[in-house]
Amino acid sequence: MIELVGFDGDDTLWHSEGFYQDAQAAFRRILAGYVDLTDAGVHAALYAGERSNLRLFGYGAKGMTLSMIETAITLTGERISAADLHRIVALGKSVLCHPVELLPGIRAAIEQVAARHRVVLITKGDLFHQEAKIASSGLADLFSRIEIVSEKDHAAYGRVLRECGVDAGRFVMVGNSLRSDIAPVLALGGYGVHLPYHVTWAHELEHDVAEDHAHVVRIDAPAEIPAAVERLAARAAASGQAA
Amino acid sequence: MIELVGFDGDDTLWHSEGFYQDAQAAFRRILAGYVDLTDAGVHAALYAGERSNLRLFGYGAKGMTLSMIETAITLTGERISAADLHRIVALGKSVLCHPVELLPGIRAAIEQVAARHRVVLITKGDLFHQEAKIASSGLADLFSRIEIVSEKDHAAYGRVLRECGVDAGRFVMVGNSLRSDIAPVLALGGYGVHLPYHVTWAHELEHDVAEDHAHVVRIDAPAEIPAAVERLAARAAASGQAA
Repeated sequence: MIELVGFDGDDTLWHSEGFYQDAQAAFRRILAGYVDLTDAGVHAALYAGERSNLRLFGYGAKGMTLSMIETAITLTGERISAADLHRIVALGKSVLCHPVELLPGIRAAIEQVAARHRVVLITKGDLFHQEAKIASSGLADLFSRIEIVSEKDHAAYGRVLRECGVDAGRFVMVGNSLRSDIAPVLALGGYGVHLPYHVTWAHELEHDVAEDHAHVVRIDAPAEIPAAVERLAARAAASGQAA
Repeated sequence: MIELVGFDGDDTLWHSEGFYQDAQAAFRRILAGYVDLTDAGVHAALYAGERSNLRLFGYGAKGMTLSMIETAITLTGERISAADLHRIVALGKSVLCHPVELLPGIRAAIEQVAARHRVVLITKGDLFHQEAKIASSGLADLFSRIEIVSEKDHAAYGRVLRECGVDAGRFVMVGNSLRSDIAPVLALGGYGVHLPYHVTWAHELEHDVAEDHAHVVRIDAPAEIPAAVERLAARAAASGQAA
């Protein structure tokens, strides 16, 4: 009763958020030379700048870097040196260039799922950077389709499912973010395997998914993905028979 | 004999390059306060920086802005002020926010082509920015499919044609860039309608397409697109009969 299984990219297939958080930490160390980061107002201004620039820049390392540069200039009252801004550009470049390290066991897990279901990659962020990571990952050939979207909302999942010709009730999404990978799929009537990553971007923590939702299985490691998909497939079959 | 007609976005459906060139001109005025731009070495360094960052950042306003910031810091030996770098960030934001102005007659031209053929939009650049422009353009509903790609090479066109189930010999691409819109399509055996824009980014001038290529029609205004497509359709039909 499950036809299609989608996999998220960042922090589900390969490590990502850690590189962003390292860059943000280095950014804060640079800023600390100019402003008092223990000040709640400064902290609030930092996060507000990031959120407001998301609407203009979208997700990804380039937008983050531009946002850091702008925030640094604004928060320091244009006192920051070009040398320090150069360091901030370099931080962004390091995120764009970081090596792609797969989560342990992820290739075997995808292969096992792919033996029973059609699998697709649905990832969010900067097109150019995501394509580079997909190419480096060596996983591209496992997926029947790769979708890079600018926002993982129910409209985006709805479009992908339409193009794949699959009802949401026959779709499982596997990912680390309840906000981006699970909630919009549940809203469409689909299923989710939640594999939390050890760090989560504050933005992705905003969601209202109950962890005991009947359409969600939470797991702790990639090796558990195939069994989790089959558990949801059994539930989908039971719900199909009941209907 | 023509099943599918692709349209480019930037400078084919809506004005774009002018906004980038205005930003670049303003960027050079800022830089001129620090370095001698009449110096051939400085000019070469500017273009080299842009080209080398393309490989890391890809196309689009965010990459261009990061590239301008980095080039400004490097070329000035880290002497540029935060205030001037702030102006450069603002230049990038203005490109990201510019109003979408359609080329005159483009909607009618697409509608006329769509009455006889399936039409798709194939555009290159930043996913987030392209989506915003497509939404603002009001043209999205005219296309059966919208593809935003990071590079318009023959691999990208080949993938789109495969997914559309169309042979290259039954495909016409309409666009302003011989390098991005026409050359890779000709390489696959397809057809091109070349509608030059009044300004062209230096990068897009690098190509080896003969303007008298039998698979290319060059026109001067959007209103000529439908007739140009039909001329190519007649050639495709003749070539099909000859084969």
